Amino acid sequence: MDVRSYISGYFDGEGCFTVSLSPRQKLRTGWEVRPSVSVSQNHDRSEVIDIIASHFRCGSIRRDPGDHTVKWETRSLDAIVRNVLPHFESYPLLSGKQQDVERLRLICHWMLDKRHLDRHGLEKILDVLTRMNPSGQRRYSIETVRRSIDKVKA
Amino acid sequence: MDVRSYISGYFDGEGCFTVSLSPRQKLRTGWEVRPSVSVSQNHDRSEVIDIIASHFRCGSIRRDPGDHTVKWETRSLDAIVRNVLPHFESYPLLSGKQQDVERLRLICHWMLDKRHLDRHGLEKILDVLTRMNPSGQRRYSIETVRRSIDKVKA
Repeated sequence: MDVRSYISGYFDGEGCFTVSLSPRQKLRTGWEVRPSVSVSQNHDRSEVIDIIASHFRCGSIRRDPGDHTVKWETRSLDAIVRNVLPHFESYPLLSGKQQDVERLRLICHWMLDKRHLDRHGLEKILDVLTRMNPSGQRRYSIETVRRSIDKVKA
Repeated sequence: MDVRSYISGYFDGEGCFTVSLSPRQKLRTGWEVRPSVSVSQNHDRSEVIDIIASHFRCGSIRRDPGDHTVKWETRSLDAIVRNVLPHFESYPLLSGKQQDVERLRLICHWMLDKRHLDRHGLEKILDVLTRMNPSGQRRYSIETVRRSIDKVKA
């Protein structure tokens, strides 16, 4: 058994690669950009969640008593770039979800270059996000963010 | 990448190992026992489903236009025993779901010995099923089947 391949197979089904957007008045664009990698499981068989947390050496495990799930998540740009993305380069997802991994990688590298802090960079990020995670739910739609930054100086 | 480990990781999240029960008047117990192994995915990223079907060399792929999923399933006792279960012996699930694999294996071996065809054997199968797939939905509850076979001669 190769646990690294197993983890990729598990993520192909259950993993989520996304970028959330939260309003932050003190930022120039008005929006905080936060990358996230997460995976959930019913708490009665959460062994894989522990294996994933140990493997990636980052993130945290949170129990949701509401729906009886356990979720591992990392929102650290540094941890995603150093610990998570290299794994999915060596052990890529075999489905189209790998495209979300590549889109997340692109956005993370833009963020390392601080491009998410101005209007033009954030617009490019929004363009990528419209093609990511079609089934995901967002608190603020990409259209809402786009309209909001139209008012910000470039 | 080791595709066999990847497939096990994928099944840990998305796979289903179960045994269905359908009323069949012409059988001595009144119930047909059918083992099943299946896995689903959204049709827009169903590549893994094709990989799984090729790997196990059995089963069929069915598209469900209702919920936009693609499902691979095998209900053949012979295929499950020869093609599917040996995989999960070499590449076991790392979560508690492996217990469902072991319970399915036990029931399949009883079926090879034709023990599902009499009341006593079916009762033993029902005992195992009560501990399997707690979240699964059944058309006929195990209690319904149990009451029904109480009337059958041992």
